[in-house]
Amino acid sequence: MSSPAAVNPSADLAPLQLVRIAVDCMGGDHGPAVTLPACQAFLAKHPQAELVLVGTPSALAAATGWSRCELRFATEVVTMDDTVEVALRKKRDSSMRVALASLKPAPEQASNAVHACVSAGNTGALMAVARYVLKTLDGIDRPAIATVLPHRLGGFTTVLDLGANVDCTPEHLLQFAVMGSALVSAVDGTPQPSVGLLNIGEEAIKGSETIKRAGELLRAAGDAGHINFQGNVEGNDIFKGTVDIVVCDGFVGNVLLKTSEGLASMLADFIKQEFTRGPLSLLAALVARPVLQRFKARVDPRRYNGAALLGLRGLVFKSHGSADAFAFEQALARAYDAARNRLLDRVHDRIGHTLQAQLLAVPLAGQAQEKAA
Amino acid sequence: MSSPAAVNPSADLAPLQLVRIAVDCMGGDHGPAVTLPACQAFLAKHPQAELVLVGTPSALAAATGWSRCELRFATEVVTMDDTVEVALRKKRDSSMRVALASLKPAPEQASNAVHACVSAGNTGALMAVARYVLKTLDGIDRPAIATVLPHRLGGFTTVLDLGANVDCTPEHLLQFAVMGSALVSAVDGTPQPSVGLLNIGEEAIKGSETIKRAGELLRAAGDAGHINFQGNVEGNDIFKGTVDIVVCDGFVGNVLLKTSEGLASMLADFIKQEFTRGPLSLLAALVARPVLQRFKARVDPRRYNGAALLGLRGLVFKSHGSADAFAFEQALARAYDAARNRLLDRVHDRIGHTLQAQLLAVPLAGQAQEKAA
Repeated sequence: MSSPAAVNPSADLAPLQLVRIAVDCMGGDHGPAVTLPACQAFLAKHPQAELVLVGTPSALAAATGWSRCELRFATEVVTMDDTVEVALRKKRDSSMRVALASLKPAPEQASNAVHACVSAGNTGALMAVARYVLKTLDGIDRPAIATVLPHRLGGFTTVLDLGANVDCTPEHLLQFAVMGSALVSAVDGTPQPSVGLLNIGEEAIKGSETIKRAGELLRAAGDAGHINFQGNVEGNDIFKGTVDIVVCDGFVGNVLLKTSEGLASMLADFIKQEFTRGPLSLLAALVARPVLQRFKARVDPRRYNGAALLGLRGLVFKSHGSADAFAFEQALARAYDAARNRLLDRVHDRIGHTLQAQLLAVPLAGQAQEKAA
Repeated sequence: MSSPAAVNPSADLAPLQLVRIAVDCMGGDHGPAVTLPACQAFLAKHPQAELVLVGTPSALAAATGWSRCELRFATEVVTMDDTVEVALRKKRDSSMRVALASLKPAPEQASNAVHACVSAGNTGALMAVARYVLKTLDGIDRPAIATVLPHRLGGFTTVLDLGANVDCTPEHLLQFAVMGSALVSAVDGTPQPSVGLLNIGEEAIKGSETIKRAGELLRAAGDAGHINFQGNVEGNDIFKGTVDIVVCDGFVGNVLLKTSEGLASMLADFIKQEFTRGPLSLLAALVARPVLQRFKARVDPRRYNGAALLGLRGLVFKSHGSADAFAFEQALARAYDAARNRLLDRVHDRIGHTLQAQLLAVPLAGQAQEKAA
């Protein structure tokens, strides 16, 4: 199955000349000890970027006088253990919230516009506050979290949703496919990224009722040229690089991400254990060191740190909470690429071209049955 | 959370002195070229085992006169591409079906009883034919597929379901927990194996409605001493060895298994590529060879080949279709251990002690709400 002529409605969007990113400097396990050095390194490599550093006055003291940086103070910090409730209702002047609020459009001050926000704060709180402060885009019921996983062809597979939505309808999965397409076309420059629906077999008759109906919806969207839908894919296809984007509900996405992290971490430990088992192994480790380091660099998850929260009226990127400065810098770079290539406009355009036409106009077998029942 | 005194109703079951296993010699990618050598190797290591070799006369000719082997002929073969429909309705004299049918109790011929069946045939066909020929146990709505994955503590985590059931109710998940407990206590000798419910967070409030209600059911079963329930676990816990058994629906289980296979295979290829990148790497590979081989052996999936189809009136084990003789022999050994330790009786006993008491007597918040609504 293939969609011969998927349309990219944002093909002629010009990139931004200047990108301003708000950084929640207090988020993550390490806070400013990691985020500030990361911001410095990022600025050095991105001359067309400016940062809005958000944090407590004492935490930001070290950044006083940094060029291309504006400091914005907040009195509170959302911790990694704070509940959504606390982040949302109690800590109204948190660095996370102030950073997110800076994304809200302020037409009079367009020259000060902030184009993206990056935080390593806890995911549940970040999503909830972002949703509250920014609201979702028209045509999007629920925002989704998208990240990339490396595949064996040397590139990355974008997977969404990763845990924002545990119970998804077929329509949600279509929205994820459209938003994922916008993300990949913005960040990787792929004009018509291919989309697969995660399932337990390649045949269209496989899977739950929700998945089968999602398959119908995605196929219709593919046939209409709104996405480049390639059909069902299976778990192993993520690492084969079969498609650019893999769409699944947040429960499955979260399980597959954590399972992958757990397996990779166990295998890395096993390798380390075997190479430190006695003097001969240690000698082998010494000789093999450059090879092992190349391997390690190749699968280093810090390289692709930075998950996108898609579907909001503002670009939000989430760094891993345990990120070090190198990893956090990658999250900043991902946010920069997305903002520079106008991801928000792309999502907006694609949603406009796809969802309204698609969801409202195309009668689906599943829906028809439901109505008849 | 812990279940202080889980009861094992089969604690005093005596092991079988003689185990007879029916082998579908035609199944899998390689058929008798793999299954027959595997059977020979298995018999050499298991003096208390007998085999019933099922296949076409020409395929079994090589096994004529083997000791402790009975040959049983079938005229048809279910291929790896055959649909469930074909396996079930057209090929009524397939080796798969004849092997499965040999499990049906025949009281007059008790001395010829077959205790387990092993096939490397296609999973969908095997499950469908097994269900048709054997039927499910009382108290079991749907059979489940269980396999083991290695964890970092050196043991294995049993995961079920792996794809037999895409839409599961909370009651199905409880049945999986009970059957998984019987499996682990039979094969590993763990009297009270611990059970975790796969979720996207450890807190009881996480997850879909189905998962939350399954959590209530499992907790009630744990409190009543029917299983040793440890609460929610996440994807990475599978490889941490947090619990002996991880319960999930077949969609999630299938995705996590295939994702894990895909990731492990990619990482293995990356290691190989790095160790063959130029002459210095090749030298390193030579020096590191024993270490790498130890690593490879440690994570070799052939070692734990053999998934159990649980909930049927007969013990059925499924080998990976691509298994070689070593891997197929492991599947035979797993079936042997399970049959010898009377897995079928254990499942039956546990279901009797747990499910009827549990499901019929304990009112659940979720169900009460539904009724009220």
